[in-house]
Amino acid sequence: MHQHIDTLTIGTSGQGLYEFTRQARGFVASSGIRTGLLTVYVRHTSCSLLIQENADDDVKTDLGGFFRRLVPEGMDWLVHTTEGPDDMPAHIKAALTQTSIGIPVADGRPVFGTWQGIYLFEHRHRPHRREVVLHLIGEE
Amino acid sequence: MHQHIDTLTIGTSGQGLYEFTRQARGFVASSGIRTGLLTVYVRHTSCSLLIQENADDDVKTDLGGFFRRLVPEGMDWLVHTTEGPDDMPAHIKAALTQTSIGIPVADGRPVFGTWQGIYLFEHRHRPHRREVVLHLIGEE
Amino acid sequence: MHQHIDTLTIGTSGQGLYEFTRQARGFVASSGIRTGLLTVYVRHTSCSLLIQENADDDVKTDLGGFFRRLVPEGMDWLVHTTEGPDDMPAHIKAALTQTSIGIPVADGRPVFGTWQGIYLFEHRHRPHRREVVLHLIGEE
Repeated sequence: MHQHIDTLTIGTSGQGLYEFTRQARGFVASSGIRTGLLTVYVRHTSCSLLIQENADDDVKTDLGGFFRRLVPEGMDWLVHTTEGPDDMPAHIKAALTQTSIGIPVADGRPVFGTWQGIYLFEHRHRPHRREVVLHLIGEE
Repeated sequence: MHQHIDTLTIGTSGQGLYEFTRQARGFVASSGIRTGLLTVYVRHTSCSLLIQENADDDVKTDLGGFFRRLVPEGMDWLVHTTEGPDDMPAHIKAALTQTSIGIPVADGRPVFGTWQGIYLFEHRHRPHRREVVLHLIGEE
Repeated sequence: MHQHIDTLTIGTSGQGLYEFTRQARGFVASSGIRTGLLTVYVRHTSCSLLIQENADDDVKTDLGGFFRRLVPEGMDWLVHTTEGPDDMPAHIKAALTQTSIGIPVADGRPVFGTWQGIYLFEHRHRPHRREVVLHLIGEE
């Protein structure tokens, strides 16, 4: 049994979904692991992870539109407002999605479905550098 | 250390929660693994996974009722509408729940609580065949 | 490759976020594992898990405030009401957050970000004793 661990840095420029499926596949391919478990973990609390359809960009637009409506800026009952109007909504959106996702690996590839992609879901407006840890355990 | 991997196909006939706790337990039992980690992963973006109470069917009814109200069909601002009125709401419901769940295994069994069951949460109306990948790593 | 498994019991006294970052770090430190995967799993369906900011307590207040507004008690269409007005909202809040979180371990520590803490998110009013299973696999 072997392990591999790496950190991916993703630059973001505002709210939205940033795909890193290719990098996740590359990490698994270069490890030589054929059967195992890939864990993807984001080290922040104002962005999150999501597996979603990567066939039609409109899906990304609508996901952003839904979360913006569900957790709008300017909710007047919020008390944590010192870091800007998008900060507390960002924490809430992160709580509603994922910080960590585990993906089995078979035949040397993550078992993503045909239309699945993996995304960093940025909830802040300003540019950020986000760290995503990739961990892989399995057999060659 | 050993690994086992298998794909479960679950036929769905409309929106709702489809339990597969028995199949997950059976996969672990037949592997011979006593201590380890079971990962359950769904290869789709318009259905999802959920661990919930399996004692009272009313819980399932109310979960469906809540998500239908939170993410109704017919939101007029959606742009991804070509695959039917239930498609984009399905992606949003999937984003709000899980694509992957990890469950420790002890004494040869997943450590489900007394009232916990694991479900495929189908968000589409039409029948589908859904693939759930089961991955297990551990020691006999 | 080695494994460690333990159960943490967390006493709760009403709705809110109960941090157990220190206990999770201690479990990893005492195992001797340097590189691996920590999985945290809650054996209940009316509380859940969350990784969130642990710098400002106002974030916890606002998270509670949001979920209380999104899933209020007294929704008159609920059918599962026999266990009290906070029971079905608790199941819904659990469905919207996590039952299980995987965290890579590097240099003998979970790779939490600077501001990340891990919490049990209690959704019931009455006191409960909650079981959280910690599973660790990796190399010394």
